[in-house]
Amino acid sequence: MSENNLQVLLKRRPQGAPVQEDFEMAERPVPLPGRGQVLVRNRFLSLDPYMRGRMSDAKSYAKPVDLGGVMEGATVGEVVASDDPGFAPGDSVMGGNGWQRYCVVDAGRLRRVDTSEASLSANLGVLGMPGLTAWVGLEDIGEPKAGETVVVSAASGAVGQVAGQIAKARGARVIGIAGGAAKCAFVKDELGFDACLDHRGDLNAQLDVTCPDGIDVYWENVGGHVQEAVFPRFRDFGRMVMCGMISQYNTAPGADATGAPPGPNLGPIVRKRLRVQGFIVSDSGWQRYAQFRAVMLGLMKSGELRWKEDVVIGLEKAPKAFIGLLKGENFGKLVIRID
Amino acid sequence: MSENNLQVLLKRRPQGAPVQEDFEMAERPVPLPGRGQVLVRNRFLSLDPYMRGRMSDAKSYAKPVDLGGVMEGATVGEVVASDDPGFAPGDSVMGGNGWQRYCVVDAGRLRRVDTSEASLSANLGVLGMPGLTAWVGLEDIGEPKAGETVVVSAASGAVGQVAGQIAKARGARVIGIAGGAAKCAFVKDELGFDACLDHRGDLNAQLDVTCPDGIDVYWENVGGHVQEAVFPRFRDFGRMVMCGMISQYNTAPGADATGAPPGPNLGPIVRKRLRVQGFIVSDSGWQRYAQFRAVMLGLMKSGELRWKEDVVIGLEKAPKAFIGLLKGENFGKLVIRID
Repeated sequence: MSENNLQVLLKRRPQGAPVQEDFEMAERPVPLPGRGQVLVRNRFLSLDPYMRGRMSDAKSYAKPVDLGGVMEGATVGEVVASDDPGFAPGDSVMGGNGWQRYCVVDAGRLRRVDTSEASLSANLGVLGMPGLTAWVGLEDIGEPKAGETVVVSAASGAVGQVAGQIAKARGARVIGIAGGAAKCAFVKDELGFDACLDHRGDLNAQLDVTCPDGIDVYWENVGGHVQEAVFPRFRDFGRMVMCGMISQYNTAPGADATGAPPGPNLGPIVRKRLRVQGFIVSDSGWQRYAQFRAVMLGLMKSGELRWKEDVVIGLEKAPKAFIGLLKGENFGKLVIRID
Repeated sequence: MSENNLQVLLKRRPQGAPVQEDFEMAERPVPLPGRGQVLVRNRFLSLDPYMRGRMSDAKSYAKPVDLGGVMEGATVGEVVASDDPGFAPGDSVMGGNGWQRYCVVDAGRLRRVDTSEASLSANLGVLGMPGLTAWVGLEDIGEPKAGETVVVSAASGAVGQVAGQIAKARGARVIGIAGGAAKCAFVKDELGFDACLDHRGDLNAQLDVTCPDGIDVYWENVGGHVQEAVFPRFRDFGRMVMCGMISQYNTAPGADATGAPPGPNLGPIVRKRLRVQGFIVSDSGWQRYAQFRAVMLGLMKSGELRWKEDVVIGLEKAPKAFIGLLKGENFGKLVIRID
């Protein structure tokens, strides 16, 4: 093979916000597949906020990336060589194949992808982990009903755009929250949310106007001042889907109470019979992938599901793009095209 | 009838902790039942923390008691006169009959009580609203499993003692938290909890020893420094049953975020996939009363359910007893015997 395997390694654990120097590029020979293994040429890499947790060795739900190890991440690509009867060269596949151009992986850890249904990169977003996250969180916790008011933070992001559109398809009134006029216009005009509020403006005043009767479901991606504005507005029997709190990933990664900023007084949870529940999609989400994919493809066909990708070209740009993701600089699902 | 109807009225809304002057005694003629109504002579009155909310006109899940109105509360007693075919003089009944000696009530609002199964007053505690609260909260939210660690705050109180014993009967390891050595000894030695921690001591040190591997279910009755100590100790997939937060009822009654002290950072809810859920027993609990009562009577017969009542004699002592309840001065389920 003429190409080397370009990789992005974790060089050191970030102090606060990650910087370029926390990553390191490496070039290594392309590996060969052993028995039952497949060599994959990654075409797109998904960048997602959870990766900040993997860079830290604070206790969390998954093991951290080793220092000097390849950064973890989902990719889509095609099979180059296979020593497994289930895969043949040219097959399109998805898997947790890391920030690298090539990888050798056990066949059982790959999922075949049908690119006649949607683009290859869509399998990292609307049909991938972020979309699955949105669907699982609404199925299991949010349970939006027709006529209810659903608020989605980080509404133009990979998870938020799907969560809002699923809720909308179920007949809910859906209010997005995003940063800046361009994202808000996209969420309202392109994705079809009922409104989208700019959290850089006076969020309380905007919520007063758009949610005068309160909020039934809040999809939490961000924490911080957005959570502060939304939490007191729950209606009785409201549900708070705890998907993430990106605003504190750099200040209190994987935080227990120690060092993390205080949260809301929990009294309203009793009085309003709220349910505040966290989930991690990898616990059981992939076991329901077929059902999820069928729902998504149905919404695509009916025209109820649109999405935006923010495609950055070149694996060597992944660290900078990821650093920007944690600051909200991406616009849509962030993917790296690995040339 | 030779007796008058002694009543306790709400004279003014408390500022902070209620004081004797917020209440007023009244004597009125005993009323007569109209068509479909029953005259009840109340024998025991239940005093419960939720009543603090009814004294306030802050927005809450139930309407406040009117100024000058009879304080609300559950009672047990017997039928004196009836103009309804379903009840006859001498019948033992329970109902929401207020802080008063007599009341006339629509027959449909009374529940007949079988005193051969348990004492009359037990129907205000272990077989009444507090017991039902414990059972519903564990059925719907706590769901303790064999081998799990369950922590119950206000463990010697009306709800806590039942919640802990139900969890114990289901095979969980149950740790109580109570105020002072006498209550802790009672919870451990009489109720059979595995341990009971004194929240007046160093709760963190005691939790380190008794719950070294963390907590699966926390029954929240109190808030404040107890919540602070327990919250960071949840294990993955932990459940927090939000029954009440008595430590702030006098400082932030019916509080929204406004004026209430901050709570824990919510990050661990995501990372540990916690469920934090509130409930009010009156929403649907009474519809399941028969099932609950059967479970409780079963536990009584098998010797797995014990309970303690704190009986104060004389309706005129109800205000003082209630003021003490909010300070944790009662020991066991607080009831007033109305002589």
